Amino acid sequence: MHTVESCQKAKLAIRDTLDVVGGKWKLVLVSILRSGPKGFNELSREAGVSPRILSKELQELEINGLVSRTVCNTKPVTVQYALTPYSVTLEEVLLAMERWGAEHRRKIIAGM
Amino acid sequence: MHTVESCQKAKLAIRDTLDVVGGKWKLVLVSILRSGPKGFNELSREAGVSPRILSKELQELEINGLVSRTVCNTKPVTVQYALTPYSVTLEEVLLAMERWGAEHRRKIIAGM
Repeated sequence: MHTVESCQKAKLAIRDTLDVVGGKWKLVLVSILRSGPKGFNELSREAGVSPRILSKELQELEINGLVSRTVCNTKPVTVQYALTPYSVTLEEVLLAMERWGAEHRRKIIAGM
Repeated sequence: MHTVESCQKAKLAIRDTLDVVGGKWKLVLVSILRSGPKGFNELSREAGVSPRILSKELQELEINGLVSRTVCNTKPVTVQYALTPYSVTLEEVLLAMERWGAEHRRKIIAGM
């Protein structure tokens, strides 16, 4: 049952989550980085997101401790983005969204 | 393990989910409606969202079969919004986000 109090709590927690990983790109970026660290251009290509937006999204993920940024001593200098151990806590959210998205797609296709 | 193929699938499914329930408000609105049907103004107040944006968000939720809109034969006419049976499929996503948001808040407070 959802009481008024448990609803308030649920609403707050969902809003907290959306504040950190909401928006169009953050969870997509995290899901891409699950296959291993990536460079900036690689990420931009795989996600289909413009460099300007990608840079902002990665910075916010970094601030919240979900993505790490490593400057590599190459010529020219390259930057690698990777998931942090903390990002593993998002696995349940990602799996739930994966399952829902796949089911929803099946439903839409079946209904056409 | 995340293979290239399973990653592509995961990315697509997550994107599908975000296309339907992404953005700042939709999951918050669904979580508010879990406590029962609500009128437009009540929803606007509880979510803290402007009427203009609320109207757009509710319309999109309705199109995707997650929220139903009932015009009530009162004077003046009122409109009730409620969750559809299909919206129950979002429970896993909502619960995962609730848990993550609550844990993240605890972590932030503990780290201050």
